[in-house]
Amino acid sequence: MFSHRVAALRPSPIREILGLVDRPGMVSFAGGLPATDTLPHPRVDLDPTTLQYGPSEGDPALRAVVSENLRGLGIDAPPERVLILSGSQQGIDLVAKLFVDPGTPVAVENPTYLAALQTFRFHGAAFTDLDWTDTPAAPLTYVVPTFANPTGRCATTAERDALARACTDGGVTLFEDDPYRELAYGPCDRTPIAARMRGGSWIYQGSFSKTFAPGLRLGFLAASDDLFPRLVMLKQAVDLHSSSLSQKIVLDAITAGTWPGRLTDLAAFYRRRRDTFDAALHRHFDGHATWSTPDGGLFFWLRLDRPVDTRTLLPEAITRNVAFMPGEEFYAGEPRLGTLRLNFSHADADATERGLRTLADLLTEQ
Amino acid sequence: MFSHRVAALRPSPIREILGLVDRPGMVSFAGGLPATDTLPHPRVDLDPTTLQYGPSEGDPALRAVVSENLRGLGIDAPPERVLILSGSQQGIDLVAKLFVDPGTPVAVENPTYLAALQTFRFHGAAFTDLDWTDTPAAPLTYVVPTFANPTGRCATTAERDALARACTDGGVTLFEDDPYRELAYGPCDRTPIAARMRGGSWIYQGSFSKTFAPGLRLGFLAASDDLFPRLVMLKQAVDLHSSSLSQKIVLDAITAGTWPGRLTDLAAFYRRRRDTFDAALHRHFDGHATWSTPDGGLFFWLRLDRPVDTRTLLPEAITRNVAFMPGEEFYAGEPRLGTLRLNFSHADADATERGLRTLADLLTEQ
Repeated sequence: MFSHRVAALRPSPIREILGLVDRPGMVSFAGGLPATDTLPHPRVDLDPTTLQYGPSEGDPALRAVVSENLRGLGIDAPPERVLILSGSQQGIDLVAKLFVDPGTPVAVENPTYLAALQTFRFHGAAFTDLDWTDTPAAPLTYVVPTFANPTGRCATTAERDALARACTDGGVTLFEDDPYRELAYGPCDRTPIAARMRGGSWIYQGSFSKTFAPGLRLGFLAASDDLFPRLVMLKQAVDLHSSSLSQKIVLDAITAGTWPGRLTDLAAFYRRRRDTFDAALHRHFDGHATWSTPDGGLFFWLRLDRPVDTRTLLPEAITRNVAFMPGEEFYAGEPRLGTLRLNFSHADADATERGLRTLADLLTEQ
Repeated sequence: MFSHRVAALRPSPIREILGLVDRPGMVSFAGGLPATDTLPHPRVDLDPTTLQYGPSEGDPALRAVVSENLRGLGIDAPPERVLILSGSQQGIDLVAKLFVDPGTPVAVENPTYLAALQTFRFHGAAFTDLDWTDTPAAPLTYVVPTFANPTGRCATTAERDALARACTDGGVTLFEDDPYRELAYGPCDRTPIAARMRGGSWIYQGSFSKTFAPGLRLGFLAASDDLFPRLVMLKQAVDLHSSSLSQKIVLDAITAGTWPGRLTDLAAFYRRRRDTFDAALHRHFDGHATWSTPDGGLFFWLRLDRPVDTRTLLPEAITRNVAFMPGEEFYAGEPRLGTLRLNFSHADADATERGLRTLADLLTEQ
């Protein structure tokens, strides 16, 4: 009855768990939620033309500003090759549609963003592990080089250069997903891999969910000449265009004089949260787990000293009012056991202390 | 290099032409655009929680109100089986993903909504003509029974009953697309086919684009038990969830005391536009074309007396500042020549007169 793809459909654990975040008293380290305190209070001037149908590619003024920013990063992205997305998850669906047939190899970091794995898997992708020093053995490679999800890792300059060269020389399409780049707390080379490509095929995408507001569902991509027109046609077929209102609000925000200050404040706010979280981790997990303090992004990636399947801990954790993401979900193939992804941006200091103590107790009892 | 589906990708003529609507002096009969005068001026209270991530299924309060409306139409749609969409085009993509493999038969009216044809075609659908009096020879049937696009036709009570029975008895999934139902100008049976199903598999979808504002990109679907959870998983994978802000604005609008009056006023406004358009058509096309005056929706469907391929007329029409949709684009297979779809909702009386005179002149010159 259903299409052959439907066999690969599984509910997203992130989304299932996000439904629990609103429960009173729940401490959620699960989603990639911005702190609600950081969300903006824009004044919305609802000119009716803002509410009419618009072009599939997006509002020309917004495309121009995005283009300017991307060119500032060194990416070859004129306005006519910028596409506004209904959130960057949409970009993953479009790219999967463009490239992935059943059995098509896709090279990914392992672990990597689980909702990307789900979408590629639904289209039939056969995953291969990305080796940063070698040419990907796949026509398409998906990477989150700057503050990776879930590990928080920032790829080195040498790795970025090598992957750019390998993609160009090997005829591999680079799909670079960069939602966290503005949330930087320590020194690291954030120059996009797409900016290092000399020719070749590439898609670079970003998001306004982390810097502005996820509820507006707005992101963007830029792509090389050979890919862009097809991505626009795919976008037309999935939702005609992204919300004109969201585009107007974001355009107003990012062109306001206050925008650079907002980004600075946001990074400072999340750096403090990271440091608070790191200190609480040391209090409760020293001797039980190891982790690297991330230089950016929204997550700590914990490796427990014992190979517990953390999926089995989640129901009891939720009973005790703490949510987290089992690390096993982020692996393309056989998972490494004993890993957890912990979001540090959403909970305040008290909730963080309470939540981490509860998690540590739960682990000790096992 | 690309997926096998990409061979079926063609640019949407609607979207290409919509890009021309803003040209000064252009009269566009092409898109399904609401009159800009009818668009609302809502006051937006941007509570930050409105800007946070939300559930994939949609805002619970909005789902409850949609459910109540659908139940009022006789559809078995409790709130937990209502999914908020980023416009109803998204529903077509989700249903195509759920059902259509290369070669899967899909029964459609012929002609029918061209962006539905494009999306089904991209997934590999093999179209068969819907015969309202017989069981569709396909596992899935897509229909716009109330003020069809492009013909404006409203299916009869007997046809609706017969298709509901045929789908239930024949194990055919009904996909009913109902964006125009509130724009009714004459008497006709608008009770959904989904409300006539006794068991069986069905999806019913509607839109806020025509009754409120297309730029918010918001629609909804309800589905039978066997389909709903899979549609939610597919929605998660394509954009996580629809704009929280758009959902809040629409919820406020449709629960306000002014909503029923807005619908009445809107129908009265568009009935006048339809009548104005009809009169202008008689002045310029009597003796050259035939048409039925639609009892609802946004379109006249013209059948010329000569089998002109109207696609060949479009470039010259646009040079003369008039846009229309060639009817050939709406056919699943071999098109019937000499047809045009003319939108009557967007242009005012003067523009309508000028545009139809120009089109008639162009046809006479051929």
